[in-house]
Amino acid sequence: MPIHSAALAATDATGQVPTLATRFQAVRAATLAIAAPLSAEDCQVQSMPDASPAKWHLAHTTWFFETFLLAPNTPGYAAFDPAFKVLFNSYYNTVGSFYPRPQRGMLSRPTLAQVLAYRAHVDAAMLTLLADAAAAERLRELVTLGLNHEQQHQELMITDVKHMLSVNPLAPVYAAADPTQLRANAANGWSTFTGGLVDIGHDAASRGDFCFDNETPRHQAFLRPYELANRLVTNREFLAFIEDGGYTRHELWLSEGWDCVRQNQWRAPMFWRKRDDAASDAWREFTLRGEHALDLDAPVSHVSFFEADAYARWAGARLPTEAEWENAARVSEANAATSLAQLFGVLWQWTASAYLGYPGFAPAPGAVGEYNGKFMCNQFVLRGSSVATPAGHERVTYRNFFQPDKRWQFMGIRLAR
Amino acid sequence: MPIHSAALAATDATGQVPTLATRFQAVRAATLAIAAPLSAEDCQVQSMPDASPAKWHLAHTTWFFETFLLAPNTPGYAAFDPAFKVLFNSYYNTVGSFYPRPQRGMLSRPTLAQVLAYRAHVDAAMLTLLADAAAAERLRELVTLGLNHEQQHQELMITDVKHMLSVNPLAPVYAAADPTQLRANAANGWSTFTGGLVDIGHDAASRGDFCFDNETPRHQAFLRPYELANRLVTNREFLAFIEDGGYTRHELWLSEGWDCVRQNQWRAPMFWRKRDDAASDAWREFTLRGEHALDLDAPVSHVSFFEADAYARWAGARLPTEAEWENAARVSEANAATSLAQLFGVLWQWTASAYLGYPGFAPAPGAVGEYNGKFMCNQFVLRGSSVATPAGHERVTYRNFFQPDKRWQFMGIRLAR
Amino acid sequence: MPIHSAALAATDATGQVPTLATRFQAVRAATLAIAAPLSAEDCQVQSMPDASPAKWHLAHTTWFFETFLLAPNTPGYAAFDPAFKVLFNSYYNTVGSFYPRPQRGMLSRPTLAQVLAYRAHVDAAMLTLLADAAAAERLRELVTLGLNHEQQHQELMITDVKHMLSVNPLAPVYAAADPTQLRANAANGWSTFTGGLVDIGHDAASRGDFCFDNETPRHQAFLRPYELANRLVTNREFLAFIEDGGYTRHELWLSEGWDCVRQNQWRAPMFWRKRDDAASDAWREFTLRGEHALDLDAPVSHVSFFEADAYARWAGARLPTEAEWENAARVSEANAATSLAQLFGVLWQWTASAYLGYPGFAPAPGAVGEYNGKFMCNQFVLRGSSVATPAGHERVTYRNFFQPDKRWQFMGIRLAR
Amino acid sequence: MPIHSAALAATDATGQVPTLATRFQAVRAATLAIAAPLSAEDCQVQSMPDASPAKWHLAHTTWFFETFLLAPNTPGYAAFDPAFKVLFNSYYNTVGSFYPRPQRGMLSRPTLAQVLAYRAHVDAAMLTLLADAAAAERLRELVTLGLNHEQQHQELMITDVKHMLSVNPLAPVYAAADPTQLRANAANGWSTFTGGLVDIGHDAASRGDFCFDNETPRHQAFLRPYELANRLVTNREFLAFIEDGGYTRHELWLSEGWDCVRQNQWRAPMFWRKRDDAASDAWREFTLRGEHALDLDAPVSHVSFFEADAYARWAGARLPTEAEWENAARVSEANAATSLAQLFGVLWQWTASAYLGYPGFAPAPGAVGEYNGKFMCNQFVLRGSSVATPAGHERVTYRNFFQPDKRWQFMGIRLAR
Repeated sequence: MPIHSAALAATDATGQVPTLATRFQAVRAATLAIAAPLSAEDCQVQSMPDASPAKWHLAHTTWFFETFLLAPNTPGYAAFDPAFKVLFNSYYNTVGSFYPRPQRGMLSRPTLAQVLAYRAHVDAAMLTLLADAAAAERLRELVTLGLNHEQQHQELMITDVKHMLSVNPLAPVYAAADPTQLRANAANGWSTFTGGLVDIGHDAASRGDFCFDNETPRHQAFLRPYELANRLVTNREFLAFIEDGGYTRHELWLSEGWDCVRQNQWRAPMFWRKRDDAASDAWREFTLRGEHALDLDAPVSHVSFFEADAYARWAGARLPTEAEWENAARVSEANAATSLAQLFGVLWQWTASAYLGYPGFAPAPGAVGEYNGKFMCNQFVLRGSSVATPAGHERVTYRNFFQPDKRWQFMGIRLAR
Repeated sequence: MPIHSAALAATDATGQVPTLATRFQAVRAATLAIAAPLSAEDCQVQSMPDASPAKWHLAHTTWFFETFLLAPNTPGYAAFDPAFKVLFNSYYNTVGSFYPRPQRGMLSRPTLAQVLAYRAHVDAAMLTLLADAAAAERLRELVTLGLNHEQQHQELMITDVKHMLSVNPLAPVYAAADPTQLRANAANGWSTFTGGLVDIGHDAASRGDFCFDNETPRHQAFLRPYELANRLVTNREFLAFIEDGGYTRHELWLSEGWDCVRQNQWRAPMFWRKRDDAASDAWREFTLRGEHALDLDAPVSHVSFFEADAYARWAGARLPTEAEWENAARVSEANAATSLAQLFGVLWQWTASAYLGYPGFAPAPGAVGEYNGKFMCNQFVLRGSSVATPAGHERVTYRNFFQPDKRWQFMGIRLAR
Repeated sequence: MPIHSAALAATDATGQVPTLATRFQAVRAATLAIAAPLSAEDCQVQSMPDASPAKWHLAHTTWFFETFLLAPNTPGYAAFDPAFKVLFNSYYNTVGSFYPRPQRGMLSRPTLAQVLAYRAHVDAAMLTLLADAAAAERLRELVTLGLNHEQQHQELMITDVKHMLSVNPLAPVYAAADPTQLRANAANGWSTFTGGLVDIGHDAASRGDFCFDNETPRHQAFLRPYELANRLVTNREFLAFIEDGGYTRHELWLSEGWDCVRQNQWRAPMFWRKRDDAASDAWREFTLRGEHALDLDAPVSHVSFFEADAYARWAGARLPTEAEWENAARVSEANAATSLAQLFGVLWQWTASAYLGYPGFAPAPGAVGEYNGKFMCNQFVLRGSSVATPAGHERVTYRNFFQPDKRWQFMGIRLAR
Repeated sequence: MPIHSAALAATDATGQVPTLATRFQAVRAATLAIAAPLSAEDCQVQSMPDASPAKWHLAHTTWFFETFLLAPNTPGYAAFDPAFKVLFNSYYNTVGSFYPRPQRGMLSRPTLAQVLAYRAHVDAAMLTLLADAAAAERLRELVTLGLNHEQQHQELMITDVKHMLSVNPLAPVYAAADPTQLRANAANGWSTFTGGLVDIGHDAASRGDFCFDNETPRHQAFLRPYELANRLVTNREFLAFIEDGGYTRHELWLSEGWDCVRQNQWRAPMFWRKRDDAASDAWREFTLRGEHALDLDAPVSHVSFFEADAYARWAGARLPTEAEWENAARVSEANAATSLAQLFGVLWQWTASAYLGYPGFAPAPGAVGEYNGKFMCNQFVLRGSSVATPAGHERVTYRNFFQPDKRWQFMGIRLAR
């Protein structure tokens, strides 16, 4: 289950369409809620170059609204601190220089308290801006992008914090009631799809709701008949792969994956652990509620593309392409009787598709256009959404993407054949 | 023009279909011809981890025939030297351990003379084996694979030697008449293709001629209408990109490409040079006949995918997908009146397609199956063939592939839109 | 001027010899005073592998007393947290495993507040222990070692914090009244010493006061006549070296120093800065009170051994050996009329002596013996003390040591000839 | 026993003092003799950055005579090839740019044959120059330096070739009669020396024979009474250290040494080997005559300073200082009845002394002055000479030096206490 209230839901509990200002407040509050259990020290640490400190996420998402909304649209807007322009830019070359990513954890100043003040300052100015109905209408698209951007960082905050806590020998607890705990809830089996010439991608024009540029343009793809597994691969199934020598048999791995296994001495998914001194040799797992016995019936998580690909080969199956996944999910949307489970809200699902632009893809001009297109190289697409994805953020056309050796996100495996 | 006689041509000069033994001798001789201008020292050096010493290529291609043909099929065959099994294995994990690639240049023994003796020993045994018509027929497929494998190494020998000579401040000459010299020979313009549902890949069953496993299975792909440039981008055009700040404008590059440019301080294609002390600041180019003035009308070569992609973006165009390229080349095959030039025999052409398995792809079982499928990750497809490709080795369905930062092969740019 | 009250002074303001408990309290309080201006975030960050987070210093110095004093001497002592044994061990292999140094900044837990509670817990237990006069007498030597150890970490806290703040583009302020600010206060000139067979090292037996094992045994060394500069090299003098091409003339540098200059692109001492966009091109300096104009008459600080050595060569002089320095300082102690200034309390002074054991040196047995002897390799000796050294911690026989490329300590240059 | 004829002996077999030209010819011929068993390929390979290809040694020693003798002293001398100026410069910054050391193995051209022609060209010109008695007298000192320089490279050629052959799984043979084979030939025991104020270093003025600048000036050092072992530590003794856990007990090692052991996974001296598949688990050793059973009574060789230091600590002894070694060797020279064996011609002996300038040391001006002084940092002194040292090259004042982790030279252990 996603952990956040439905901040961007089309309608609220009473069936009303919330205003843009209401949505803005809800999303911004959800970010603070994720940070609430964290100390100033927790928010400071960057545990690897791929991750960012929670404090940085809190500031960067705020920087987005200050830079792209307030500065151009609020006459006389005074920046909270001009130095933040560089400090909290992430990769937007167009907006000027940026602070090197691997050193984000070096910045003890501004403190967490100052960053929270920065958020409050920007939130107040944003709400003033959005109180002007004409401005709100004119800026709706960009504000919505900012909110979706912030939701992406909400998920990253959770996964970055999990990694940060995991490197601490004390195995600290984020929250006693772990919002990302996975449970078994799906029956095995295969669903069959006929394929043919299918539509892929978001129909921005006709649907009207938000999407990222990389989900467009809608286009046709030709699919052979195929089958998808009804549920994700479980820890029990993945353990059988391990016990069958999965991590020691080169013939199961891509060449680069095999190098990766040997170099990093991978023996199991990312957060699995065995206690050297334990009487029992049962596997345990580090989670946001500390270290616990591995739940064998839960879906296997925190596996890389390389591990997903090797597992599929071992199992005599393969990973689905993103077109196969999207077509199946669309069929499921249209037909509640389908048996496909765990499409959303459990684990992102690795596909066999490299992350590239769709036919006719053109990134938006300017800084916003740097958002997705820049990364169309050496990454693989994941589909669905995860237990850490904010509610309302997922879509059947959503394209997540990571390098094939990454595994600190909530990533799992759905087989195809 | 390809540099080798038509070793694997379907028919010889007199119109006869050559025997397998004749083909074997021709391909093996072509390898020796490439090595002929090289000293023992030239054949020893490995100038970067991506490259191999010429001596190693001479031995490894021989190891292929000894390991996969002679050992299983010649009763009582005595290995030339049992230690070569490990030394000259490249990546065939299934065949046992292998000597680490980056240290191939450390092996002074066996000497070049001993490796040439190894070749002669294996050639003699192979010809004896192939003299048995039944055996030749039974082994035709595997021998043909070995000959195609050797042709691939012929091209690598040329590109590896070029790189090796290029790091020498003496700018040494491989041959006064450079077999890889490129000349301008094509008119500008665009050819239009209607796309639709097209067939892609090799129809192994019906055509009967050789292909690699990664060219199969033949399948359908859906293409939008598109245009391809009639010729490759020239040095003059690429120079305009440089002079327009191409290597200093981040917005033209993929994120990973931009990192690559800055890290390697790229300012021009791989072998372009400017003399610090020269009165003129004209660009020069290192070639197999030494360093010479850059021919502005020749196609630009030795560019990475990142450079090809950035150039295309600068030029308001894009790179073709491999399906677009293959469909266009097939149309050109069928219709001599087409205006597409330089498809084969000039430069491999980067496509926008990641190197992945075709729908339904399954690698062959055993060691031979490690050949192509293992590398389907983080590489891009190149199509066509180059001036260094042996004659008769190219095919309209041929899929070459390299990582996007590589540029020591004869690689160029054909635009699409 | 040293920044701390005379915590370990032989007598207090009223002329009384303080008790061991009083000394303990004073030194422990001085550590907290250094941390007082720092936020939880400031105490968390490790800005390079050579440095440690302030939080770690606070905990590690406490760990020393818990491990070596309380655990063996307080019956029934309950460790504050058993996990701290590993977390806050630094290098004492004998005491068990230790947490990898470069990852000390990853530990968000325990928080600063918890570490301060740890300090309070151990302080209370220590004061109970020391209240027993017999125990205090028996443990006097080890407690004194612990206090000297803590004073060393007090200096490191200051230099580590300075480095940490310096990597922040905001140039943050540690304290408006910078306790480490250097001022010009010495006249130029040379003092002459006759040399001969002199005594070097601490006479532990006869003097009775504390020293580290590496200052013993006292032994004889033969010195030629020599001269020492009366004061340290100034920023103005070092600037002349820079402006004379000091950092670009290989002949002034040791081979390894020249590699270091080129690899790190050194152009000036560690915290010197020039603003790219400044109208004036005057040098500025990062200090604990922020970035300020460079004081040309103050002693040059934060230079490596390589820079000190190159400067001396450029100036037609050399660095003193540690025996020359100690002999001169001893003469100055005995003869107040000497002209040598800035021996103590300004900057540590690089010597030409490699850090090795004195003739007959034997480290103490057990964990305490790992303290100094382990590092007698590839380091150079510095003599004197610095503005960051706690009062009462310096000695004429004190041997500080660092690798020749280090410069984040308060290090300066005194010439010899 | 040293392997070369007494090229620089004060007198020849008939008791005549050889002329400078005769000495020149003898030393130059000795270099060629070392290369004689090597193929062009053997001479090409650089097996690690510390080593150089044999071809490079052949050329660089020739470059010395061309650059420092012929160019300034032979009117109208035409360089064999002007490009060699840069290619074969080693570190003489003063003489211009130089080719990066780690890439010396990349230069296939000039070939070995061309380098031999270069040698012949320079030899002929040198003999013409030396035939002029006045010139020979005037240049005696510099020629002698060049010959000593060449002798140093002779030893390096042998050790570099040994390393290069050792990385080849074929365990190739340099020569069936290994000139560097060590044999047991000394009795155990200790010799006692009284110490006191002793003279150290070469008395260049009074003795008149050649020395390097780092052996001067002669000066006084004060030594306590000490003992030296009569012979070097044997393989049998070192094996006892290994079997007692020597490589796994941190308390025996310097901190940096322990890091080195773990990082490089050292378990034994450099060329010791155990066959995984061997029935017996006896140690074997790679030598210049291939791989053989370890001779337990021969002195242990190819150990680093770190290993020598750890062994000494384990044995309850220590390494001698270089002053102790030199004083003992001088006593032995003067008194044939001494029991000290294996001082020269077996293995260089690690001392506890860092490599630094003697009191009053000043390097020679110009390029020649870069020879030794540049390296006075992070190296340790070795004394004596080895089985690979050319006869006549050793001296009681000779200071060899290497970083403490190096072990590819013929290095051994003599204990002190």
